[in-house]
Amino acid sequence: MASEVWGERWSDSTSDIARKYMEVATRKQSLVCLAADRNTMSGLSDLISEVGPYIAALKTHVDLVDDWSPEAWSDFCKAAEEADLLIFEDRKFADIGKISRSHMAGIYDIRSWADLVTSHLISGPDVVDGLQAGWQDVGRSGGVLLLAQMSSRGNLLNPDYTDQVVNKGREHPGVFGFIGNGSRPEELSELRKKVGSEKMIWTPGVNLSTGDGEMGQRYGDPREAVLAGSDCIIVGSGIHRAENPGESAKKYASASWNALIERES
Amino acid sequence: MASEVWGERWSDSTSDIARKYMEVATRKQSLVCLAADRNTMSGLSDLISEVGPYIAALKTHVDLVDDWSPEAWSDFCKAAEEADLLIFEDRKFADIGKISRSHMAGIYDIRSWADLVTSHLISGPDVVDGLQAGWQDVGRSGGVLLLAQMSSRGNLLNPDYTDQVVNKGREHPGVFGFIGNGSRPEELSELRKKVGSEKMIWTPGVNLSTGDGEMGQRYGDPREAVLAGSDCIIVGSGIHRAENPGESAKKYASASWNALIERES
Repeated sequence: MASEVWGERWSDSTSDIARKYMEVATRKQSLVCLAADRNTMSGLSDLISEVGPYIAALKTHVDLVDDWSPEAWSDFCKAAEEADLLIFEDRKFADIGKISRSHMAGIYDIRSWADLVTSHLISGPDVVDGLQAGWQDVGRSGGVLLLAQMSSRGNLLNPDYTDQVVNKGREHPGVFGFIGNGSRPEELSELRKKVGSEKMIWTPGVNLSTGDGEMGQRYGDPREAVLAGSDCIIVGSGIHRAENPGESAKKYASASWNALIERES
Repeated sequence: MASEVWGERWSDSTSDIARKYMEVATRKQSLVCLAADRNTMSGLSDLISEVGPYIAALKTHVDLVDDWSPEAWSDFCKAAEEADLLIFEDRKFADIGKISRSHMAGIYDIRSWADLVTSHLISGPDVVDGLQAGWQDVGRSGGVLLLAQMSSRGNLLNPDYTDQVVNKGREHPGVFGFIGNGSRPEELSELRKKVGSEKMIWTPGVNLSTGDGEMGQRYGDPREAVLAGSDCIIVGSGIHRAENPGESAKKYASASWNALIERES
């Protein structure tokens, strides 16, 4: 049961959607979110059937899909729900609250199918209220993951910025958690200390083969990331470019799950 | 002629799209960009016919339009072109370069019709390359306006952040200019000093009736903003909520144009 496995992350949580994630992850025995960077509807659909059983969430970029249509996307979301997956649109909202609320609507209508979205806090904390209002507009609820760290070259999320995001985000009930950098466990432990135990930390930048990744990126080890305080590892090419994505997803699932058991025991 | 009116902004410019803007503004005798926050295609269309002759650019949020369709939007863009207007999608991109390039495509296909877009620099300067690659993918060119300042409550664009954005953005040929805050002329003068004379500064936060705006926002005076270094005043409710939007746009046009003549003479 999730309440037994997740320790203080469960007991301290005040977020329905965070508890939903912990339950899904527990059923799946997987703390894996797959970065579903496919640009066709059929490619996305294949991913769900191949790796659905071994992952807890699917990270999407809805505007990367060349043959997107409202109908095809709705079918995809149904398939994700049947596969017991949360859908996480990595939109990186970055506008004021009023506009972000409208950004949740539009043709893509993100509010109607995303359980989680990413947002920068650069424009101020009202963005979280705007996104939450977007979900409320369609009678749904969801969670905001704030970008606390990035690994891209020359990014401006310096330690001061990270602290401000964490300090403001910790207090906000609409904040599900934070995106941290999974490639350096020591920094991740620091981030976890700042965040405390209530909110999620999700981390890209992990791979079972650490070392130099695409464009010289260094990856972190999934087990170390979870031990350092990550609650979900976001994996992309490590799974969907593997010869056998299903087998690879299984390995990430078990590495992350075993690390959670180790962390909380 | 633009080359005579715009002084060093023209002579120092290395951007085709910036020169295009200066030419349009000179033909129209208007440094006004209208924030076209209407949520129907017909509302947008009405705006163009009412105020088109008195403005130089139209700032859009494509996903705020309830009855958006590719055909209707394409008609709207044609009407904007016929009215000699630049189209400026205020998307506030904030992802890494590779993803932002894809964000320019998708159903909205921003790269195919926007002359200008806004972007945060939070994820690093590669975002500008990604956006420029997006335009190149369809054989068009365009300019990026970086958010250097915002006026929203609790925003994280502190002076250090602004300096970093300006320092990195000044050097980048894909950067058209910066979004500054038009409500405080002294701060705007400071920003202009940092930016130098090559790049544009466009400013929201101005209104002919200064004082307390919506949600307690203070507005700046258009003339003062231009004298302090703004090259375009972004006006929303001051025009489209006026009893006679055309008459109101005319007033903003002449205030901004006269201020440019005053500044450069």
